Amino acid sequence: MRGMSTETAPQRLNAEQRAEIDALRAQRAETRRPTVPALEEALYQAMPVLDHGFVRVVDYMGDDAAIVQAARVSYGRGTKQSRQDAGLIRYLMRHAHTTPFEMCEIKLHVKLPIFVARQWIRHRTANVNEYSARYSILDREFYLPEPDRVAAQSAANRQGRGEPLHHAEARGLLDLLREDAERAYDHYEHMLNERQDGAVIDPSRTGLSRELARIGLPLSAYTQWYWKTDLHNLLRFIELRADPHAQYEIRAYAEVIADVVRLWVPLAYDAFADYRAGGARLSAKGLAVVKRLLAGEAVTQEDSGMSRAEWRELMQALGRGEA
Amino acid sequence: MRGMSTETAPQRLNAEQRAEIDALRAQRAETRRPTVPALEEALYQAMPVLDHGFVRVVDYMGDDAAIVQAARVSYGRGTKQSRQDAGLIRYLMRHAHTTPFEMCEIKLHVKLPIFVARQWIRHRTANVNEYSARYSILDREFYLPEPDRVAAQSAANRQGRGEPLHHAEARGLLDLLREDAERAYDHYEHMLNERQDGAVIDPSRTGLSRELARIGLPLSAYTQWYWKTDLHNLLRFIELRADPHAQYEIRAYAEVIADVVRLWVPLAYDAFADYRAGGARLSAKGLAVVKRLLAGEAVTQEDSGMSRAEWRELMQALGRGEA
Amino acid sequence: MRGMSTETAPQRLNAEQRAEIDALRAQRAETRRPTVPALEEALYQAMPVLDHGFVRVVDYMGDDAAIVQAARVSYGRGTKQSRQDAGLIRYLMRHAHTTPFEMCEIKLHVKLPIFVARQWIRHRTANVNEYSARYSILDREFYLPEPDRVAAQSAANRQGRGEPLHHAEARGLLDLLREDAERAYDHYEHMLNERQDGAVIDPSRTGLSRELARIGLPLSAYTQWYWKTDLHNLLRFIELRADPHAQYEIRAYAEVIADVVRLWVPLAYDAFADYRAGGARLSAKGLAVVKRLLAGEAVTQEDSGMSRAEWRELMQALGRGEA
Amino acid sequence: MRGMSTETAPQRLNAEQRAEIDALRAQRAETRRPTVPALEEALYQAMPVLDHGFVRVVDYMGDDAAIVQAARVSYGRGTKQSRQDAGLIRYLMRHAHTTPFEMCEIKLHVKLPIFVARQWIRHRTANVNEYSARYSILDREFYLPEPDRVAAQSAANRQGRGEPLHHAEARGLLDLLREDAERAYDHYEHMLNERQDGAVIDPSRTGLSRELARIGLPLSAYTQWYWKTDLHNLLRFIELRADPHAQYEIRAYAEVIADVVRLWVPLAYDAFADYRAGGARLSAKGLAVVKRLLAGEAVTQEDSGMSRAEWRELMQALGRGEA
Repeated sequence: MRGMSTETAPQRLNAEQRAEIDALRAQRAETRRPTVPALEEALYQAMPVLDHGFVRVVDYMGDDAAIVQAARVSYGRGTKQSRQDAGLIRYLMRHAHTTPFEMCEIKLHVKLPIFVARQWIRHRTANVNEYSARYSILDREFYLPEPDRVAAQSAANRQGRGEPLHHAEARGLLDLLREDAERAYDHYEHMLNERQDGAVIDPSRTGLSRELARIGLPLSAYTQWYWKTDLHNLLRFIELRADPHAQYEIRAYAEVIADVVRLWVPLAYDAFADYRAGGARLSAKGLAVVKRLLAGEAVTQEDSGMSRAEWRELMQALGRGEA
Repeated sequence: MRGMSTETAPQRLNAEQRAEIDALRAQRAETRRPTVPALEEALYQAMPVLDHGFVRVVDYMGDDAAIVQAARVSYGRGTKQSRQDAGLIRYLMRHAHTTPFEMCEIKLHVKLPIFVARQWIRHRTANVNEYSARYSILDREFYLPEPDRVAAQSAANRQGRGEPLHHAEARGLLDLLREDAERAYDHYEHMLNERQDGAVIDPSRTGLSRELARIGLPLSAYTQWYWKTDLHNLLRFIELRADPHAQYEIRAYAEVIADVVRLWVPLAYDAFADYRAGGARLSAKGLAVVKRLLAGEAVTQEDSGMSRAEWRELMQALGRGEA
Repeated sequence: MRGMSTETAPQRLNAEQRAEIDALRAQRAETRRPTVPALEEALYQAMPVLDHGFVRVVDYMGDDAAIVQAARVSYGRGTKQSRQDAGLIRYLMRHAHTTPFEMCEIKLHVKLPIFVARQWIRHRTANVNEYSARYSILDREFYLPEPDRVAAQSAANRQGRGEPLHHAEARGLLDLLREDAERAYDHYEHMLNERQDGAVIDPSRTGLSRELARIGLPLSAYTQWYWKTDLHNLLRFIELRADPHAQYEIRAYAEVIADVVRLWVPLAYDAFADYRAGGARLSAKGLAVVKRLLAGEAVTQEDSGMSRAEWRELMQALGRGEA
Repeated sequence: MRGMSTETAPQRLNAEQRAEIDALRAQRAETRRPTVPALEEALYQAMPVLDHGFVRVVDYMGDDAAIVQAARVSYGRGTKQSRQDAGLIRYLMRHAHTTPFEMCEIKLHVKLPIFVARQWIRHRTANVNEYSARYSILDREFYLPEPDRVAAQSAANRQGRGEPLHHAEARGLLDLLREDAERAYDHYEHMLNERQDGAVIDPSRTGLSRELARIGLPLSAYTQWYWKTDLHNLLRFIELRADPHAQYEIRAYAEVIADVVRLWVPLAYDAFADYRAGGARLSAKGLAVVKRLLAGEAVTQEDSGMSRAEWRELMQALGRGEA
């Protein structure tokens, strides 16, 4: 994955929000708990994602050594030597001993489009507090893709994106999306008869309840939440959502979070990259094919017992193109 | 809650869907498993909710006796006499012995507006398969409230609905919602360059991928899912979502599901109605007030140690109005 | 895995238990729900495991077609043709689309040693009702391994079993285990001052509470529970517990349950056997080694970047012995 | 609940363990995260429970303000004034808005008898790493109750303890438990042919694998684990396990943990004590009785519609004895 952006997206925050974050970052306290200086450095900052979104690390518990400590159920730090710790962490990851990774926890504040939130929430082993549009008024902010992300339905992968559209075509569609979103927000304010700052628009009218007024807003509207999960489930999130089959927009979040994990627990992240995000899962049939190939045998899809799709995926994994 | 509607909402289904349901309902097989004739009768039927939604019971496991059987870890049916079963079920409900209720399971097919789905999904102990708008095209269907459900923000309950708006005002807002939704769907089709039946609109254009085209649709658009959960978690869902503090639209679903539960496990439902949905939770302070009142003492909010809001809620629970 | 035993372990059940089971098996009802005749045939029967344990299927929900139906969020059965269903199920399994498999549910009655129960309960996504030793008296039954299962600590796998002990040695240890267990149960009865049938032993003494008397019983004592889970989590259970790294005693249960799954959802089971239980997971480094080998390169552990343990596991997976 | 013991149970720890804990307590680091000085003071210390057990706080995330911060999805600390925070926390607790409480997390190291561990593990929403008796050798430590905790089966509560036995009787039973436990441990060592320090006992014999040797140990043997959960689920644990219906031995742990929570999040703990641990739940029928009593009506069990057990529980809750 990519180098971590340290841009803090000031333009995404208003003055009050910036001041609140600065106040948090300025405070220091002494603790006996394990700390991760690299993550402390990034704490509370808004890391930009998409056009208006962000990820902020709000709190964390544990570090690489905490994984080792839990695996050993130890009285002390559990650490012997860094090399031994790395070896144990790799062993745990390789053999799917997942519970020690659950002993680290992270809490994020995320701003994200509603359609992304709907995919994200499917990860059930997490704690969530979402901004309530029954209680509060949403921001006038909508996700619009970059023109070169505006693409046709994929032919190969029936649920994803394929080739980008021509820029003129893309621009036309983006204009439609933007105009509809702006109009929906205008009508939202009209129905509420109130602006986000609390100002009443027309004192002679009664505003509509917030829980109803918001139902006309598009799925591209931004929401925000506090989201907290353990490292094992976070790695599972990254594995599924940083995958090329995931929709680009949630992938953008997963990649920023992967960068956070690399800062936080570098040994666990390396083991994850080697054993889970990288590499490949061979089926029983796929493994049989590999053994035959290694024995110098010529194997074809027809005599592999695999379907055409499976065969293609295997050949891709083995770097043999359309072999 | 209300009597169960046996209307099967035929207008909500097209001919093909009706035929599929009829075919399911026509099939019969023999089983050794416990069956609930009243629920069999309702099986697969679409029970209407809101303007375009429905709830269908697709499958179920267990009955009242299965709760008893699990509580007793018995070899046989677990049933002694119906009266003893009722007594045990009431005891389990009263003492929060929740695990025997987890031994019944139900599977529903639900059609619901996206903003309702977003509240519903917060119940994490459930299994969900949602219709994929990355893979398929959504229906041209949007939720619009009945005019007398179009209400102002509540003054008392800061996240709910209060008084209905005047009908003229309501109609105006409904027109806005309808027009915006129709326009958004027109643009959705234009962006896809394809109708739901697969017909290409303009062969000279390339359609936009489905995962992107849908982001302009409003939160009032309908989605659908298979949702499966156990009886304990279902009762928790009903407790929270059939509550007056819940948004009317999800309450409409919770009430239909409560009717289903009453058909399915009448003893468990009665115990739930008595101990969980009915009655009241008294705080330590509230209980002290009740004891003082029963002792003939005059008690005021000021000397109760309770806040004004707590006092008001207590007096309401005790049926003492603004006492 | 092995052929399914249809032995029904009558010697493990007393006359009353057999009669209760026979009564359940004799009952028949008509249902509109999907049924699986092969599983109906096995329903309620006690399938023997270890020396006194069993697994009984008490109820089930869904079948192979229910997986397809949920994946398609369909109004009808979801089935097109059996071959298409198999293809979709294989696709879902291959791409870790796990939610449709959660739409099938099974409920088991299991009798098992307490040390096995302690491993089993770590699978958290399940519903459990265990026989209460606070409320009831446990049976005089203890697990004793077959002599050829009495083995030394493994040298290779630091948490498992290696070579069997000599039979004379094994017999000596089994005698110790048996005598201690019998004595502990005698003392249990003495402390309770009551037999399991309710007969008081010495009317002049007061018995000890059940919750305390049981603390002297060994971990080899048998307990029983109702355990209910969905197919996805059941397959995960089988994957981890039918694995050679699992302790033999829980593996014995996992293998019987695997046989049940094969009866219940044969298409899903085949896909599981091919993609999850069979085959191999290659790390990024392991995949690089395979590519180099396929390109005809000689690769050694030293230049593979892998640890010795990883290299050995890879060579074993590829069937290259100690290469 | 009781005042917090600051005894650190040095006799429960060996010199190496004490040194490891002292080393942890001596370390200090700077952090931007919220800290709770009162909990920092207790961090890593072994708080004694029962005869050989303990609870150690190993790490924590969040404080009272973090609950408020999550409920408000705020950019800053979320804190306005302490009084407002208390009010919001009480409101959230009263209305069962549980998700903000899930935003605090705690990690404990616990040493506990196996029969207590078996009750504890039923709380599924937690992360656990237990000391492995497949991999390591257990300590020679067993729980034996204090003589005045050795009690008969309760007549009123069919799953609990009633009156203590005579001391002579109690001592006799404790001697039996102690002798059996010691003998079982002697045999454990003999079967392993190895002491916990790794010394081989008889070089001419092969030891039994650890996973088998431990099956003869009693349920009173001590195990240990790392256990991590969020505040909402921790309060639920305390609610159920500090309850008089819970077995005394797990209650002893729940009470120590309640003391920890009071140090950690005093506002949340107070709200919990008032609304959840204290007070009473009235059924619909119970509430109707209270209303009639408040109206000056005489009500009897017979005309209350309640069973005798329910009536007795209600009268007890209202402090009306056997009225």
